Amino acid sequence: MSKPTPLSGFPEWLPPQRMIELSFLERLRSTFELHGFAPLETRAVEPLDQLLRKGETSKEVYVLRRLQAGPDEEDDSLGLHFDLTVPFARFVLENAGKLAFPFRRYQIQKVWRGERPAAGRYREFLQADIDIVDRDTLPPHYEAELPLVIGDALGGLPIPPVRILVNNRKLAEGFYRGLGLTEPDEALRAIDKLDKIGPAGVTELLAQTAGASDSQAKACLALAEISASDASFVDAVRALGVEHELLDDGLTELAAVIETGRDHSPGLVHASLKIARGLDYYTGTVYETELVGYEQFGSVCSGGRYDNLASSGADHFPGVGISIGVSRLLGLLFNASALTVSRSVPTAVLVALPQEEVRPTSNRVAAALRARGVPTEVAPSAAKFGKQIRFAERRGIPFVWFPGAEGAPDEVKDIRSGEQVAADAAVWAPPASDLHPIVQGGR
Amino acid sequence: MSKPTPLSGFPEWLPPQRMIELSFLERLRSTFELHGFAPLETRAVEPLDQLLRKGETSKEVYVLRRLQAGPDEEDDSLGLHFDLTVPFARFVLENAGKLAFPFRRYQIQKVWRGERPAAGRYREFLQADIDIVDRDTLPPHYEAELPLVIGDALGGLPIPPVRILVNNRKLAEGFYRGLGLTEPDEALRAIDKLDKIGPAGVTELLAQTAGASDSQAKACLALAEISASDASFVDAVRALGVEHELLDDGLTELAAVIETGRDHSPGLVHASLKIARGLDYYTGTVYETELVGYEQFGSVCSGGRYDNLASSGADHFPGVGISIGVSRLLGLLFNASALTVSRSVPTAVLVALPQEEVRPTSNRVAAALRARGVPTEVAPSAAKFGKQIRFAERRGIPFVWFPGAEGAPDEVKDIRSGEQVAADAAVWAPPASDLHPIVQGGR
Repeated sequence: MSKPTPLSGFPEWLPPQRMIELSFLERLRSTFELHGFAPLETRAVEPLDQLLRKGETSKEVYVLRRLQAGPDEEDDSLGLHFDLTVPFARFVLENAGKLAFPFRRYQIQKVWRGERPAAGRYREFLQADIDIVDRDTLPPHYEAELPLVIGDALGGLPIPPVRILVNNRKLAEGFYRGLGLTEPDEALRAIDKLDKIGPAGVTELLAQTAGASDSQAKACLALAEISASDASFVDAVRALGVEHELLDDGLTELAAVIETGRDHSPGLVHASLKIARGLDYYTGTVYETELVGYEQFGSVCSGGRYDNLASSGADHFPGVGISIGVSRLLGLLFNASALTVSRSVPTAVLVALPQEEVRPTSNRVAAALRARGVPTEVAPSAAKFGKQIRFAERRGIPFVWFPGAEGAPDEVKDIRSGEQVAADAAVWAPPASDLHPIVQGGR
Repeated sequence: MSKPTPLSGFPEWLPPQRMIELSFLERLRSTFELHGFAPLETRAVEPLDQLLRKGETSKEVYVLRRLQAGPDEEDDSLGLHFDLTVPFARFVLENAGKLAFPFRRYQIQKVWRGERPAAGRYREFLQADIDIVDRDTLPPHYEAELPLVIGDALGGLPIPPVRILVNNRKLAEGFYRGLGLTEPDEALRAIDKLDKIGPAGVTELLAQTAGASDSQAKACLALAEISASDASFVDAVRALGVEHELLDDGLTELAAVIETGRDHSPGLVHASLKIARGLDYYTGTVYETELVGYEQFGSVCSGGRYDNLASSGADHFPGVGISIGVSRLLGLLFNASALTVSRSVPTAVLVALPQEEVRPTSNRVAAALRARGVPTEVAPSAAKFGKQIRFAERRGIPFVWFPGAEGAPDEVKDIRSGEQVAADAAVWAPPASDLHPIVQGGR
């Protein structure tokens, strides 16, 4: 076969990058569990009709076909999921009788989008989601809790600080309705394009799609300009002089989210009234997240409250969730060379091999070290010791172990300092800082 | 929408089962890293021509199509991977210049097989693979090493003991050729069906497909009957009186694997000369694994040596690998109710909520406990304490925390014993055995 080449949109990390990714996932997982979220994994596929409930996303689905499907076999009925929220909502409906509500879960999985190939656009990527759903009603305090969990999770990673930007769909819809606009979804969609097409473009779009007059468009833009890290945004909105019951609800809910954020993690959570989120299923609070210094690349972590996604007949499970774009975040930081790992393998000790015949001796040293948690491998062949040391060097393995010949004690060499000392595999351990690879941020 | 129903072949675990699965994966991952295997994850898709290189497997592939693909767009060119070995071989060829050889990696991912739907047949399942590849030549000691790594990994899990059954393709091919059979692959395929169709059926098949006479078929069956937990199988094979150079090589290699196994992990590794493995790419040692007490369900962990899978022009990367069928193993044990977990959420402490107004107080208790690694959540609402305790009981959360009112000390209650004591969130911790859910085996 000819040498394979990468597939556009399907990123693959080399092992050092995967080690960084795993250290991130371990941090996310443990933080989510500290906050009481239970793990869940759903199948990769959903019935196509489920995936297409939101027409907007239909263009992004990969459809599956059995290569050897018979002519009478139903085809094209399954697609790969494009997010983890739609599968989670389906899972909750399917298994409601076996779950205890409110149900908190995290889910870390690949998702796929059948995008037209384009530079920098992922067609396969990893997401890490947390959601809380309840039966019938979901108290608003969960909308304040989720960004704090995300702040804890991302705050423990060697990345720049994040700013979680929060808005509320009721606030926006109430404002637009209070202005007299009868197509609030269209207005929201236009505002969502503000960063791309600028105020003049949005004004034009608001006139075209939402029937907004100049003064209505001005008010919409004025709302979108409001941002604050405390509840002062409420007065700023009130000053625009628009009245609507939904607007009142949205202001109250958003103020609670912002104030809880200030109380728990000052500087983390900000009101930003231009945040819209494209997906139709959000009904209340919506979140986006900027990575400080990487704002121009967009949100690395988004979500919101959805009241109608998991509903079937009389069963109704409102929820709120946030999704960290793990591949997106790592892709940004890898491209900026902003993450490093101290070695390219987990191995802390390479046991040298004096001759092939004494491999069992080297194996026993390795087993003794592993039994106490020290990642160890044995040299591939009984080459000259200089070559065995270079084997370790190339991988960043910090220690090489030399089994003692004929009753002499074993010795272990720190190949960075060159220091070599007598050692017993039953008791020796590397410094804690050398036991596992260290992931660091910064350029 | 109507209530969703499960999809045949796409198993999904409830959170308690997923917690068990994660504890298994954590054990596998840490064992693989202790043995110096670096992590890798490859994309879920491969070009279809890659997946179809082995004609035998073509019937099992899921092909992808972009739902909105244009008429001029190449279609049907990508498929979901059906194992992790073919993608790994492709990854090695693609990235050889960036890897250090010998290259040890582990890979834990879902795979998909586009099987006709049938009871008990998985179409999506999780595998955990380890492989070692080298450039040009791969020393045989790696074939002895891999089963020991698997023994360490599975031996640490709360499951019945395993027996790794080993054979060697050279041994079998040499024996068949030494017998005078010119279609050794066909002979191997017939022997592979021994457990399904019995000796009479195999004899018939050997005659039909491999042109074997009665005495040749008898010799093939005699070989397949040989098994041993030491090198005594060599004499048993020699006693059959067949001579071939490949047979000699195979006997030497298999004896080394069995003897290394005896030295390191007595009782783990057995020679079993009926083991064939269906896939064409194996060229030396092959492995299957029985779970003691579940032998009738087949192998839970299989693999072998492949010399020609990762080759491109002058680049040649022989390898050896073993794959643990994680979904298969868990499916067997879940069906037998042979695994339990001590609670259905990670949470160790539920902080009670006296009134909604003092939620910030309960939040601060939770934050203090989490800061010291205690998984904690706050009660969803300020219901009666009896109801809040039942919330914890339903999930198996062992402790409920009561913030003290008006200067009184906080108290924490072990809801299993009913014992309630004064406690300070800045110093209190649950017993280590209650900190995280405990996974146990047995019925």
